[in-house]
Amino acid sequence: MFEVISGGICAAKGFLAGATHCGIREGSKSNDTAVIYSEVPCTAAAVFTKNRVKASPLLVTKEHLKNGRAQGVIINSKNANACAPDGMANARREAAACAKFLNIPEEDVIVCSTGVIGQRLYVEAIEENLHLLQLKPDGSDEASRAIMTTDTTPKTAAVSFQAGGKTCHMGGICKGSGMIHPNMGTMICMITTDCAVDRELLQALLLEKVNISFNRISVDGDTSTNDTCCILANGMAANQQIKAKTDDGYENLAEALEYLCIQLARKIAADGEGATHLITCKVSGAASEADAEGLAKSVCSSSLVKAAMFGADANWGRIICAMGYSGIVFDPEKVSISFVSDAGRILVCDEGKAVDFDEDLAKKILSEFEVVIEAKVQEGTAQATAWGCDLTYDYVKINGDYRT
Amino acid sequence: MFEVISGGICAAKGFLAGATHCGIREGSKSNDTAVIYSEVPCTAAAVFTKNRVKASPLLVTKEHLKNGRAQGVIINSKNANACAPDGMANARREAAACAKFLNIPEEDVIVCSTGVIGQRLYVEAIEENLHLLQLKPDGSDEASRAIMTTDTTPKTAAVSFQAGGKTCHMGGICKGSGMIHPNMGTMICMITTDCAVDRELLQALLLEKVNISFNRISVDGDTSTNDTCCILANGMAANQQIKAKTDDGYENLAEALEYLCIQLARKIAADGEGATHLITCKVSGAASEADAEGLAKSVCSSSLVKAAMFGADANWGRIICAMGYSGIVFDPEKVSISFVSDAGRILVCDEGKAVDFDEDLAKKILSEFEVVIEAKVQEGTAQATAWGCDLTYDYVKINGDYRT
Repeated sequence: MFEVISGGICAAKGFLAGATHCGIREGSKSNDTAVIYSEVPCTAAAVFTKNRVKASPLLVTKEHLKNGRAQGVIINSKNANACAPDGMANARREAAACAKFLNIPEEDVIVCSTGVIGQRLYVEAIEENLHLLQLKPDGSDEASRAIMTTDTTPKTAAVSFQAGGKTCHMGGICKGSGMIHPNMGTMICMITTDCAVDRELLQALLLEKVNISFNRISVDGDTSTNDTCCILANGMAANQQIKAKTDDGYENLAEALEYLCIQLARKIAADGEGATHLITCKVSGAASEADAEGLAKSVCSSSLVKAAMFGADANWGRIICAMGYSGIVFDPEKVSISFVSDAGRILVCDEGKAVDFDEDLAKKILSEFEVVIEAKVQEGTAQATAWGCDLTYDYVKINGDYRT
Repeated sequence: MFEVISGGICAAKGFLAGATHCGIREGSKSNDTAVIYSEVPCTAAAVFTKNRVKASPLLVTKEHLKNGRAQGVIINSKNANACAPDGMANARREAAACAKFLNIPEEDVIVCSTGVIGQRLYVEAIEENLHLLQLKPDGSDEASRAIMTTDTTPKTAAVSFQAGGKTCHMGGICKGSGMIHPNMGTMICMITTDCAVDRELLQALLLEKVNISFNRISVDGDTSTNDTCCILANGMAANQQIKAKTDDGYENLAEALEYLCIQLARKIAADGEGATHLITCKVSGAASEADAEGLAKSVCSSSLVKAAMFGADANWGRIICAMGYSGIVFDPEKVSISFVSDAGRILVCDEGKAVDFDEDLAKKILSEFEVVIEAKVQEGTAQATAWGCDLTYDYVKINGDYRT
């Protein structure tokens, strides 16, 4: 049980946010640095990329989160500070600048960077100009915009829920548009809540929900070096701390976090670089949830499926082909595939074979922004959903010359 | 030791080939059916796709090759006969039509199809019109053109080599342009030789060479339902049959086959759908060949690397990122990356960090058709090469509306 509310990352009590232009990249005038602040120290949990190449800020954040506590977050765009000269030193300087600005210990700062890989972060700009930033109780939108790279829209969501007779709030912002094939959190996602919750429980819950949300989206199959998803819980809702799954409020907290993660993940998929369609693939009838997930992710990751979706072409052969090379065991002769959108529903493959279908209706269904691919196998009762986007001219355009 | 010769699939003694227009797809006027014939029965070996969804002709070919013998090959384009109504029956009818035409037993026919998935093969067209086909000693070019789909060039290669004091010949044709991420042979590749060689040895050798050629190319990460690579050896060179790796001629045979497979694989990568660059990634200094291969393939398969190559953008961060998510263990801080082409060589990353480089020279190097990415790790002495192509507007265009 939860309710959708407004306020984004500042929806929870005691959280302020803001952004400013520090001048990290020459020639760019837009805000490039966001800060999030909690009035009191928070219990913090996080998941990070599984990419062997990890950005420096991620390594610094990992160190700082060893004690499970954080109070401030600094996120810069325009530079990923990955494989960059002076990477670790500059990530520490960025965290130190934030600590000084917020007047909190350095180890209570989470630091994240996003942007181009392999160039030195001009951290001096942050050190010199961070004081210009104004923290506000309604600063979520500003912060969410400052962390955008090739994103075309800011991405926020917030909910409220009950725990131990108290109303708790939870909100998040995230960014991500390219290099999206998360394998442990997405590019960057920050979630705040005023719910009081035990750290280990929070970490386990975050991992569980990231696995069925951010880890089920793909824009281009490229797992970033900077993927980070953090949640900060400051306890200001004054509920009795949730310490176990059986405690009052846990179910609501879990539902709220799941909703938030899925909403934010879908927003990333929908805003995939160059995307003109949000593709949802629902696989049912699988032997296990892992099998269903493997099949759904393979479909959403297929370049050929993605290009067909761009063309609104009901080329379902590519869908069954992508299922076939997923590595998951299933009987191809028992597969059925349908396309579903606001314009209707159409069955295009049954028992693994073509069925006659109305191409005009299929075109109409596939021309909607959001298209659902429903694939059924007959191996069991498990199901899973994955999200992606189409492959377009603009993806190629954006990525043919990203650095300039 | 081998020499490059002409003649393609007909370079080896006793092999004839030809093609004709049967009319498999309404409205298309080009040749859609090729036949290859050996004057005497051949020892045959083959490798097939690992996609769980397998095209019907592939299953029929597998049955027919159980006895290790074949004498004729029929390949049709315009329809993959995968997930298609009457798929198995039509694949058998196609093989039967070829057997009748060549006056050989059905089980000595290899049958392959390539084209759209999920539509019924109009096998009646083949049955009615196959008699129009003329087998010729110089029919390789005609056959290689008839099996093209989105290919823009026919793909052939041939070599001669010595075995047991006799001159042997080996030639091949292949096709492939999209849905290329072979996992056991490419789309379709046929190789012929007049060398006498034991079947089990030939099968093992084919597998070995396919693994370092076709299985190291990627156009779009999509492993096809129809991948088939066959070799036919008719023994007409009259060399003493090669039965063991220590036999005279084995080394030459192995070198010849490796050269042929790599040449044909490179031609597929170079003619990837929409490609404007052939990308070669050489990884050295790896702990094992499998590690080097995993790293090289991850780089060649990355959408972001491919898009950067299209833009001739020296965005090496994407290369180290793709290495990072390959699943292979290495120390990112010991990676160096260079770009090499006919226009020169440039180091862009050393010890895992950016180095200052001349962007103009990098642009020049990356503007050549063939670009080599050299990545060195410091884990051992193993190396491997993989091939791919860039990701372009035309890839999206071709695949946005493939069926019409």
